[in-house]
This record gives sequence, C-alpha cells and structure tokens, in this order.
Amino acid sequence: MYSFKNDYSEGAHPRILSALMESNLEQTEGYGEDPYTLKAVNLLKERIGRSDIDIHLFMGGTQTNLTAISAFLRPHEAAIASNTGHILVHETGAIEATGHKVISIEVKDGKLTPVHIKSVLEGHTDEHMVKPRLVYISNPTEIGSIYSKSELEQLSNFCRENKLFLYVDGARLGSALCSEENDMDFSDLSTLVDAFYIGGTKNGALMGEALVICRDSLKEDFRFHIKQKGAMLAKGRILGIQFLELFKDDLYFNLARNANNMADILKKGISEVGYSFLTHSPSNQIFPILPNWLIEKLQKKYSFYLWEKVDEDNSAIRLVTSWATKEEIVKSFVEDMKEAVASN
Amino acid sequence: MYSFKNDYSEGAHPRILSALMESNLEQTEGYGEDPYTLKAVNLLKERIGRSDIDIHLFMGGTQTNLTAISAFLRPHEAAIASNTGHILVHETGAIEATGHKVISIEVKDGKLTPVHIKSVLEGHTDEHMVKPRLVYISNPTEIGSIYSKSELEQLSNFCRENKLFLYVDGARLGSALCSEENDMDFSDLSTLVDAFYIGGTKNGALMGEALVICRDSLKEDFRFHIKQKGAMLAKGRILGIQFLELFKDDLYFNLARNANNMADILKKGISEVGYSFLTHSPSNQIFPILPNWLIEKLQKKYSFYLWEKVDEDNSAIRLVTSWATKEEIVKSFVEDMKEAVASN
Amino acid sequence: MYSFKNDYSEGAHPRILSALMESNLEQTEGYGEDPYTLKAVNLLKERIGRSDIDIHLFMGGTQTNLTAISAFLRPHEAAIASNTGHILVHETGAIEATGHKVISIEVKDGKLTPVHIKSVLEGHTDEHMVKPRLVYISNPTEIGSIYSKSELEQLSNFCRENKLFLYVDGARLGSALCSEENDMDFSDLSTLVDAFYIGGTKNGALMGEALVICRDSLKEDFRFHIKQKGAMLAKGRILGIQFLELFKDDLYFNLARNANNMADILKKGISEVGYSFLTHSPSNQIFPILPNWLIEKLQKKYSFYLWEKVDEDNSAIRLVTSWATKEEIVKSFVEDMKEAVASN
Amino acid sequence: MYSFKNDYSEGAHPRILSALMESNLEQTEGYGEDPYTLKAVNLLKERIGRSDIDIHLFMGGTQTNLTAISAFLRPHEAAIASNTGHILVHETGAIEATGHKVISIEVKDGKLTPVHIKSVLEGHTDEHMVKPRLVYISNPTEIGSIYSKSELEQLSNFCRENKLFLYVDGARLGSALCSEENDMDFSDLSTLVDAFYIGGTKNGALMGEALVICRDSLKEDFRFHIKQKGAMLAKGRILGIQFLELFKDDLYFNLARNANNMADILKKGISEVGYSFLTHSPSNQIFPILPNWLIEKLQKKYSFYLWEKVDEDNSAIRLVTSWATKEEIVKSFVEDMKEAVASN
Repeated sequence: MYSFKNDYSEGAHPRILSALMESNLEQTEGYGEDPYTLKAVNLLKERIGRSDIDIHLFMGGTQTNLTAISAFLRPHEAAIASNTGHILVHETGAIEATGHKVISIEVKDGKLTPVHIKSVLEGHTDEHMVKPRLVYISNPTEIGSIYSKSELEQLSNFCRENKLFLYVDGARLGSALCSEENDMDFSDLSTLVDAFYIGGTKNGALMGEALVICRDSLKEDFRFHIKQKGAMLAKGRILGIQFLELFKDDLYFNLARNANNMADILKKGISEVGYSFLTHSPSNQIFPILPNWLIEKLQKKYSFYLWEKVDEDNSAIRLVTSWATKEEIVKSFVEDMKEAVASN
Repeated sequence: MYSFKNDYSEGAHPRILSALMESNLEQTEGYGEDPYTLKAVNLLKERIGRSDIDIHLFMGGTQTNLTAISAFLRPHEAAIASNTGHILVHETGAIEATGHKVISIEVKDGKLTPVHIKSVLEGHTDEHMVKPRLVYISNPTEIGSIYSKSELEQLSNFCRENKLFLYVDGARLGSALCSEENDMDFSDLSTLVDAFYIGGTKNGALMGEALVICRDSLKEDFRFHIKQKGAMLAKGRILGIQFLELFKDDLYFNLARNANNMADILKKGISEVGYSFLTHSPSNQIFPILPNWLIEKLQKKYSFYLWEKVDEDNSAIRLVTSWATKEEIVKSFVEDMKEAVASN
Repeated sequence: MYSFKNDYSEGAHPRILSALMESNLEQTEGYGEDPYTLKAVNLLKERIGRSDIDIHLFMGGTQTNLTAISAFLRPHEAAIASNTGHILVHETGAIEATGHKVISIEVKDGKLTPVHIKSVLEGHTDEHMVKPRLVYISNPTEIGSIYSKSELEQLSNFCRENKLFLYVDGARLGSALCSEENDMDFSDLSTLVDAFYIGGTKNGALMGEALVICRDSLKEDFRFHIKQKGAMLAKGRILGIQFLELFKDDLYFNLARNANNMADILKKGISEVGYSFLTHSPSNQIFPILPNWLIEKLQKKYSFYLWEKVDEDNSAIRLVTSWATKEEIVKSFVEDMKEAVASN
Repeated sequence: MYSFKNDYSEGAHPRILSALMESNLEQTEGYGEDPYTLKAVNLLKERIGRSDIDIHLFMGGTQTNLTAISAFLRPHEAAIASNTGHILVHETGAIEATGHKVISIEVKDGKLTPVHIKSVLEGHTDEHMVKPRLVYISNPTEIGSIYSKSELEQLSNFCRENKLFLYVDGARLGSALCSEENDMDFSDLSTLVDAFYIGGTKNGALMGEALVICRDSLKEDFRFHIKQKGAMLAKGRILGIQFLELFKDDLYFNLARNANNMADILKKGISEVGYSFLTHSPSNQIFPILPNWLIEKLQKKYSFYLWEKVDEDNSAIRLVTSWATKEEIVKSFVEDMKEAVASN
C-alpha cells in the first residue's frame, strides 16, 4: 500500500542522516548556539540575500506559528486567516491558547487579498472588538494554490498602509517557490513580508522549520519566546545540521522540484483520463474529483485522504507527493487509474 | 577543550542513528500514530510493569512540563516547586505563560518534603490566593541529589491525603535510577506519582522525553494538549524509534550507568586531592568546591560552569558527565588536577 | 436629544439608590460574604425554585462570560456561538484571552439550533482541532429574537447527548422572559441549561449580573475564578443590595415589561406608517427599516444606532427601550415619524 | 460589634451617593465616554498637574493591576514584587493568569529598594529565565509602611537606568499621601513612576480606582485591554461621578486624613498602655502586638484580623481605620484596652 496521504510519511533525505552521523560525537554548545546552527543561519541569510534578518530554527510548524504570532502581538490584537488557514483549523486552537483570536475569512481558493482584509478592518471599528494586526497566509495554501509576486505585493502594500504584519506559513514553501507558476524567490519574500518560515519537515528534513524575521521591531528578545514555548531544542545543532545540508547546495530546491514533478505527472495523467480538479494547484498537493467507484478501487493499492464529497457519485481526494516520491509509483497510479476506467 | 558543561553536548548514541537509518524510507502514519511509536509505548509499559498507564513522547523537557502541567491544572490552581526547580527558574516562565503560578519553597538540598508542602498549604487559606494543586519535583534534582523510595512514599502519601498531584521531572531519571544510592524502579515511581517523564535527551537520544501518566483522571484528551502546545511532531516515529532502541534491551540504563560511573571517578579523584562538594550528589552532576586558581588552570583544558562563589578564594563548579563521557577523559581530568595541586 | 441607543443610558431605578442609601453606613463583610448578598442569593434561589444551584454576582456581562467560560473549559475546549454572539464579536477577544477559541456559526436570526451545532461537531473530528464543549447563546439574542421553550429544550437535549455545556447570556434576560411570545420562566431555564446569568445592568441596576450555575460539576472553587479575573468586588454588598431590591417583589419583571411595552408602541407605530423590520424581535430592541431621509430627520431629535444599509435608499436602525423609557417619548417618536412622512 | 477589619466595611461617603442620585435619570453615553467621566479625568489631570497623562477608571484593585500589567508587558516579561505584594499573594494568581511570572523579593518592611531589584536582575541573565520588566510597589505597603520621596526617587532612577517600568498600587494612596511622614504629592508620583492608581474603594467611594499612565509608550490602545479584561463598566459614569465628587474639593484627602488620624489615636493609646507594633506604619493600618488574653477580651466588642503569632503569649493584630471611622469609637477602643489592662 503506497501512501499519498502526506509529505511527512518517510524519514529524512539520506544526506541529512549522513550529516547527523558525521558530526555525531562532536561536542557543541546547546540551545542553538552551536557552530552548525550559526553556520546554517548565515547560509540561509546568504541564500535570502540579506544580512539584516533574524533566523531561528524550530521543530514544527504549529510550534513556529504559535511562538512567532504570540511574540508579535499585544494581548488585544488578532490574526486574520482564510477559512482554510492552518492556524484557524488544524492547530487545536494553539494561537487562541496564547490569548489571540484568529479572524476567519471565507475565500474560494485559499488565498487572501486586500479586498478580504479590508472588509475585516471595516468590521473592526472600536475597542469592543479585537484589533486585527497580523495577516496569516500560507504559500502554498492548504489547498495547493500559490501566490504570485504581484498578489503578494498587493497584500504587502495593503498591510503596510494599514499597520498589519504580514506572516507567511511556509510549511511547503519549497514547493511554492519551485512551482512552474511561481515568479518569486526568498529575496522577494523577505522584502514583502514581515516574517515567514521555510519548511523543512515536509521537504526532506527529519524535522525543522526556519523562521525568518524581516521586520526589526519583531526581532527583540525572540529567543525568550522560543524557550518559553518549549521550542528550544537542547541539541539545537540537530536543526542546524539539517538546514546546512539542505542549503549548502540546491538540495532543498531539488527535493521540492521532485515533489512538484511527481504531482505534475499525476495531474497530467488524471486529466488525460478526463477528470478535473477541485482547485487549481500548481504545487505538491492535488485534489482530483473522481467517481466514487474509482476511488474505492484505487484505495486498494494506495492510501490518500478523501477531501470532500462533490455530488452523489463523485468526491475530491487529496494526493500529496514529496521529495521521496518516485516516478514509477506515480506512473503506476496513473496506469492503474486508466486500467480501472477502461475496464469499467 | 573537553566539555563537562552538560549531558547534551554530543548527538545521539550510535545505535539510535542506526535505527533511524534503517527505517528511514518506510512510510508511516504521522503524529505519533506510527507502528514504531505504538511499539515503543507498549515496550515502556512492559518495562514499567503496568498496562493501565498512558505514555506520550515529547521533544524536550520544558515542552513536556508545560504541556502536562497546563493540562492537569484548572486556571486557579498552582504548582509547588523547590527554589531550584527547573520550571521555577529555567523555563522562562513557561508554566506562568499557560496561566499558572509556581510557588517556590526554599530548600537546602533541592528536595521537597511533606513539611515544606504543609507550610505552603497552611499559607493558602482562601480564594484570594491560588490553590496549590501539583507538587513538582525533579529526580535527580537540579543539584544532583536523589529521592529515596521512602522519601517519595512520604511525599506521595502526603499529596494523596491533600489532593495534590505529584509530578516528577525526569530529565535525568536514568541517572537517578542507576545511582548507587537509589532504591526505586519505574514500577515504584508509577505507583507513587501521578505523572513523570523519562528523559531521553540527556541520556543518549537525539531528543525525546516519555511522559507517563499514571492517574486516570489526567489522561483524558491529552493528545489535544500536545497538539495545542506545538509538541506533536509530524514525523512522530523519530521519537518512537529512539525510545524503542533505548529500551529494547538495557541501553537506556547502561548509558545512565556510564554517566554515573564517570561522575564517581571524578568524585573520588577530587576527594583524594582533598576537596569537598557543595551538595551530596550521587548522580551525574557533581559540584566540587575548588580554589579559584585551580579552576582557572583547569579551564584551560576543560569547559564547565562556575556554579557559585563559596568564599573569596574558592568556588563551586558543576561537572556533568554523560552517556558519551569516556573513562580516559575523567581520569585525565583527575590527573591534571593532581599535577596542578602538586606543582602549586 | 433623547437616546434610544441602549438600555444603560440612565443610572439605576430610584429604589436601587434608596436601598444603597439606607444600608450605607452599616459595616459588613467584604467580597460578597455580607448578609445582603447572602440574602439576595437565597431570594434568587427561591425565585428560580431551586436550592441546589450556585449564584454569584458580577459587575458586568463580559466579566461574567469570561469568568464563567474560562472556569468551565479545559485548555483545548472551545465555545460555539452564533455569528452575532456577543462573546464572538463585541468582547475584544475576552474568551480567547483566556485561551479558548470561539467557533462561529452563521445564522439568520441570531439563534442556534441542534442542526447548527451538529455541523460543528461533525467538522471537529480529532485532536488537530479544538474540542467544542460549550454552546453559548443569548436570550434575547443580540438582534432581539428570543428562544421558545421548545427550541431551548431541543438545544438542551442535543447538548446533553453530546456532552456540551449550554450557557445562556442573559444580559437582557428580563426582556426575554417578559416578552409576549415567551413561554419559559427561570425554573425552566435552570433545568434546561448548565449556567445562565440574569442581567441587572440593562434592567435597572447601577450594574450587576447574577450568574446561576446549575450543573454541579461546574460549581467547585468558583470563587477562586471570580477573584482571579478581578471580578470580586470589595464592597460586594453593593451588588447584593441591588438584586435584593430587584427581586424582593416584581420590580425586575416590571422594569423589563416597561422596556418591552415601550418597544411595542414603537413597533406598532412604525408598522402603521408602513415600514417593516429587519428581524422579528419580540423584546426591547427593534430594527426598523426606514428611508434614509426619514432617518436623518429623526436624528435631529433622537439618537440611535444605524444598524445596517439595506439598499441605496433604506437602512435598518436599532431602537432600544429600557426600564426608564417613558410612554410620552415613544409616542412622540411615532408622532414625529408620522408627521415627517406626511409632510414629505 | 465594631469592625476594624478593613476600610471597605461601609458603603460610600454620603456625598458620593448624593451625586449619583442627582445625575441618576440623565442619559449619557456608556463605557466611560460620558461627560462625567471626561470631566473627572480632566479634574484628576489638573490635580496631578499634568495634561500629558492618560487616566482610566476601574472598579477594583485586582482588576486594575491585572489589566495594566498585562497590557504593559510582553509575554516573556515578569513583574517584581516584595513578598508581601498584593499581586504576589492576594490576587489568586491574577497576573500569572495573564501569562506573567511575579518574582518575589523577601523584604522586612514591605518596601523595595534598588538593592533588592539589582539582585533580581543579576540572577536573570539569559533567555532561559523570564525578563524582569516591571517593578510593582504599593504605597502604603500591605503592612502600612510608606515610601519617602527620596526612596521613590532612588527606585525611579534605578528603574529607568535598567529599563524597568515602575508601577504603584495605590489602593490606599490617599492614606500614604496624607500621612504625617509623607513628603510627596500626585505630581511627584507622576514624574517618578510609569503608572500608578489612585484608590477610591478604600477611601470613600462605592468602588473605583483611577489608573494614571504617565509613560507615553504604555498608553496606546489601552481601552482595548480594559474591555478585554471585563473591566469596562457599561454605566461608566458611575465611576466618573464618584471621582468627580472626591476631587472637586478636598474630599478625597479629608477622608484619608480622617483614616490616618483615627489610626494615630489608636497608636498613641496603645503605646501609652505600653505595647509596641510589628511594623512602623504611618498610615491607616496598624499592627500592635498585644497579649493574647487582651486580644480575646477586645474581640468581644471589636472585630479585627489576627495578623501573626509573635510568641507563645503575644500576637500582632491588624487594625484598619477608614474615612468612616469615628473618633468616639477609637477612643472607646483605647479606653476598653486601658480598663482591661488595669483590671487584669
């Protein structure tokens, strides 16, 4: 049974484990103050093209989001997220647990625009309501769509005009930046947003997310927040070594490209058979709408999530590819689908 | 420069890395629902000798403490800790950040007794004060002392009579249980306390602490709290695989024994030279009181923390040994000390 | 300029002030343990018809809501409210500030039904999401509608079957219970819900809300929560004296009836002129839809809130009557409206 | 039975009730935006001698403390208080419930000095500990002592040099400022500290504390915090009217002077009989040490708190006088004491 359920089904890219192996018995300082972490941070700054940013390494996305957002906001301030936003739906109220409301906006494609946010601002008029202060977006979004540079510029401008922080959850940022439709890079991101994170867990690391803080006023005392939230790893180097390995050459991007390429093969194959998709998703998650009988058939060889019922006979499923997905498996998926349809 | 600063200076025991390697490309469920984690949890239950306990794997001690304590307490309830308690001093107010006061008790040897706690209860008389509800102890304590079974029994009885939860921070639990002076095992712990954790990070794992919840009423919905606090690792198996490796034979205890043995060699050597210790510490942290000139000399070859000034000419230092400390290095430390004293 | 903006524009009913005057120089215990408060609590229990309930007096609605809800929920549990719910919209994230998400449900008439809540439960399936635990409703709702006994019974049954607490914000409970359409009393409420509060501030008190806790498991240690949230008034008797005065005869209900009657006169008058209403509201808040030119004219003599734009030419306004509203003023409002329309 | 238990045993000074009476049926805006509150705020600014301060009215001390301190601090920052500090001991962990540790300093006389605070700063060296950021003092302290201007200047200078906010809990500020030993006024306070509150509840108001924010950076969005903490009174004018009455002439100070004078009579009388005091307390709380037999005798006619056991035969009691205490009663207390001693 092959799983397309997510992009964290395997361990780490072998180079990651080798790097951990090689350095294993060296003694280093703890808590992210070791030479590997310092080197990884510097390397990331180079890759982003800025030395005036702060970078902190975390173990997971929820941890990164809750630490950053609670550090950035004052008690009466709230985050804004789309109705599919991970912090809104799938983090067990982690942001609220730090005291902050997450305001939800209903959107079709997972992406926020200035129009959406303007309507929230207009509805929050006085001190009887929370003060919207931070716009949370994911790139790619939770339903696979990605932001274009011009879309992000518009958001960025709007946020700056309205004193809103713009924060990007980059759990799958590699997939977004390596998408064929993408026209941004790290450097663009770093000038357009106030903070973002570069996801490692879903792109070949054992675990690890690199939070990039671009706005000066958000940097102060940040390590206190990391420690307070239980996010400061004693053997911090484990994160440093991994990011060093991912970015010392193009490994990070190559892994993301593989995930995207495998998704493309699936997309093309599924289209050829004649099926359509729930969302336009040029990244490593796709949401084909298939007849229920076909889904049942496929489930005998592949595992994946049922996403939503579309009508009586058809449902959307979610297929996620990853750095570890091999061409043969996606091809066999397409073949199996074609066969099933032919023999139906 | 060899470091005696702590027991998380190195990576992981090589068997841990091998185990990660072997399973690396297998696909498993995420978030701690993989077969490795399930197996590790069952193995730990066997080792503890009880099937009616719940076990959850975490990435670090502060994370474990804050998740457990905030899950166990209602908003008006407080924890009690000794003045050296890790949650009181060294977790950046992590417990308070979840809304709970930590009440401090001044003790000499890091250990709490019923007498201490009784005085706290007597001082908390009505609803204008917090309600003390959980007693936090560390075994070994932050200054290396350990609890005897009879001491823990007395605490346990007192807590049960007074409706207090008893919680043990076991960051270095291996060292306590393998101490020559220890007369307890996992099974004793599990019957005497309401929850405790078995520290992996400081005993050979890359990272990892296993929280054991013994009291039924504290088990409900616990995974919600793990997720909410950002402590649910996507590739949860990384923790499962490590605990499986540590406990499939006696690796965990053997590593702890090595740490203790190395500390003993240091202790004996230092005593032979004629120096004494700040605390009685039968575990892997020792606190010799040395003349300042000697400390300076030793610092040229070894790194360690200055713990406190004792008088004008003498200070206590902290030496920590670990699973990775080799006999040759502790012997050379003692030799270097003897030589320095001889040639002074 | 007469204000229909709200029902807390005036001070207190004169009998309230007289009662404060009479007892003024007596010495009593503080913090709600005085004879007046004890007597008020007992009187309320009699009025409700149950001795097995706990009653606590508060200074305001937000304070009551946040203290109760945060005391009732564990950290991972969430409240459910309609999209007009006061705790969702108009309390500056007070519930979230205590760590809990408020899940919003879009409804037309301000009222929640089992169908609504079922859909929330179905969408919250595992520990990656908060656990819905408390259903928050207002009676009357924020848009003037009220629950019938049978509607509340259905909600109550559904909540009990699904282990949800049912909590009623009764900021204007007097108006609901004295509505012509109402078929419930305090006693019904106390058996159908887990906690509710009887609003005094908006019904003739200087300030004051009486929280009634019906479910045993929610009562324990409640005074700790009151003190912790800054809601324990030193001169607690000020609240006790007021509730004693409101309930020693039918003052509370008579005041609510006056508010409703005045709203009825407005409603009838406005209907006669030919205008309709945004919501069906049998309580003391009404939402007539008027042409903009008429609104502007009325604003010269009366103040009230513009509620929402209905189309280019018409808007809904909110008119609130109170215990202090006099018949002459509502009649003159209707007259002024008729005249304006006639002369248009 | 006359009570010396506290200074909130009675209602309000009769002028307060009259003022509420007179304005009772006027309609005003809610939530502290009414003309009375605005006028009271301006009057207080005049009395303090500064127009560049912000003033907000609250209903009680715990509410004021928790709202202000949680608004002023970032999540990792902590308050410092003496071991008798009200926020530390008697507010049920209200500050911790907003996420912040309160660091305790053991002092003899309830007062903090730069030496105390310096020792705390020296013990908080890195991000593994909270960051001390706000110094909380009470004037008078919880044990009746008061700060001299020079003591406060030293604290103020130290705090500014070390980027610490200085906050004064003024629950009994009137008594401190009217003490014979006092050499400060409102204006001094406003230049030396970052925020303080002027207590009304314990000096003749029904309830009410006026928070004065002196430091610009602490003012922003403060009303959001008031609302979020449930501290925004719907009929805010009730607070405004009271402060207007207290400060439109010297009522506030006259009431405080009465409390102090009555305490002085007690002190002199008790000294004449030959008894001493637990603390030096030039304000309206005194702590005489009396033989237990005498205490028992006095308890037949007077109620007061036993403060602490001094030795087998003697205990300290707390006697609190207030704006409402009459000369005849304190004289009779002294007489009764003299008689009892004479006839012993």
